[in-house]
Amino acid sequence: MTRHLFDLCGAHPGLRFSPFCWRVRFALAHKGLDVDTRPWRFTDKATLAFAEHDKVPVLVDGDRTITDSFAILEYLDQHYPEAALLGDETGQARARFFKHYSEQALALPMMRIIILDLFQAIAPQDQAYFRRSREARLGQSLETFHQPERGAIELEAALGPLRARVKEAAFVDGEAPGGGDYLVAGHFMWAHCISRQPLLAPEDPLHAWFERILDAHQGLGRRALRTVDLAPSASP
Amino acid sequence: MTRHLFDLCGAHPGLRFSPFCWRVRFALAHKGLDVDTRPWRFTDKATLAFAEHDKVPVLVDGDRTITDSFAILEYLDQHYPEAALLGDETGQARARFFKHYSEQALALPMMRIIILDLFQAIAPQDQAYFRRSREARLGQSLETFHQPERGAIELEAALGPLRARVKEAAFVDGEAPGGGDYLVAGHFMWAHCISRQPLLAPEDPLHAWFERILDAHQGLGRRALRTVDLAPSASP
Repeated sequence: MTRHLFDLCGAHPGLRFSPFCWRVRFALAHKGLDVDTRPWRFTDKATLAFAEHDKVPVLVDGDRTITDSFAILEYLDQHYPEAALLGDETGQARARFFKHYSEQALALPMMRIIILDLFQAIAPQDQAYFRRSREARLGQSLETFHQPERGAIELEAALGPLRARVKEAAFVDGEAPGGGDYLVAGHFMWAHCISRQPLLAPEDPLHAWFERILDAHQGLGRRALRTVDLAPSASP
Repeated sequence: MTRHLFDLCGAHPGLRFSPFCWRVRFALAHKGLDVDTRPWRFTDKATLAFAEHDKVPVLVDGDRTITDSFAILEYLDQHYPEAALLGDETGQARARFFKHYSEQALALPMMRIIILDLFQAIAPQDQAYFRRSREARLGQSLETFHQPERGAIELEAALGPLRARVKEAAFVDGEAPGGGDYLVAGHFMWAHCISRQPLLAPEDPLHAWFERILDAHQGLGRRALRTVDLAPSASP
């Protein structure tokens, strides 16, 4: 296979949890494109030197290398125009809002809930890098930042528009999932794969939407390995 | 003229502040369609009986009557397809998110800031209705709900995605304003027309975006009458 994706993994190479890599995996499945995912860890910077980049996702498609999840979605629409992800110019402009919505409004509250699960799940050789880089960015220790109750309140405040949308339609993008869904669903996959705490109550319309996302594309998300599958919880 | 819009007004008939009516006024201007706006007050329910509706906007276009701001945008695209507001099916689906974003994430924090200015601005005959209906909906008195500092904090948390979007493009919808912009800008017009407190700091990229909105369509928003134009502030 000439198409491969460098995909963040945890201590277990099968544990794939990057929200940005999940966007790309959903997008490739949406296009019906096979991909060979290659497990990559935070400290494997040298592996990505060929791409002049230091973060995943990195997609290698034949002789082309594309970095950044949104740029990969744009690339896929340009080179594989069937089953558009982003759509026309207006569709692309509006899709960018979903990128910002998930990265600005959802990611931080989710991180307050899952950050210590995340720290536990990554490879031992990644932990020092992860702690140093995240603590520098957050301006505080992981343990101080970890405030799951505050995270849940802030997440609830941020979820209103998304909940209203999936109450009126099966997916953000309408009757079938599209780029708008994948740009947001990546962050839900992140929490789903890593966290021992369910993020959404079973009666929440967002729970039903996320179940539909997990089932999409022959259950791509549903088959993802999760921390809860790997070992019994340390909590009683 | 055979096209008219029932448009919420304050004590002064020229003070037009409904976020939902502003969406429609921008949308009509976007299509290059003239409209005769008819001042309407909350207690003028009988005036709208012909439309079997009790809220504005109500657009009368020849022999057709359309209620609800989003439905009016859809109607305009169907009947005047030039200069699309919502776009294709995916564009429409994504536009609905902007409706929810403004109504769910922005409206409540803004209302915490402007509700007493709003109460002061409406016609005396509307005040009892406004107080009764809003207090029932909010479950508390207008005075208790009025918490401008809390509103500013909650609004700031909600504005992240919109600010990120207008940092990378002139408008939500790209190089020119479109349906995505109008669906959100209505609520900014609400605060702009009513409130004595500026909502956005001059250095905020959202301030620059809103200035571009005010200037669009020959300064339609810029020409709006504002509370600050009407009378000196009661505050020192």
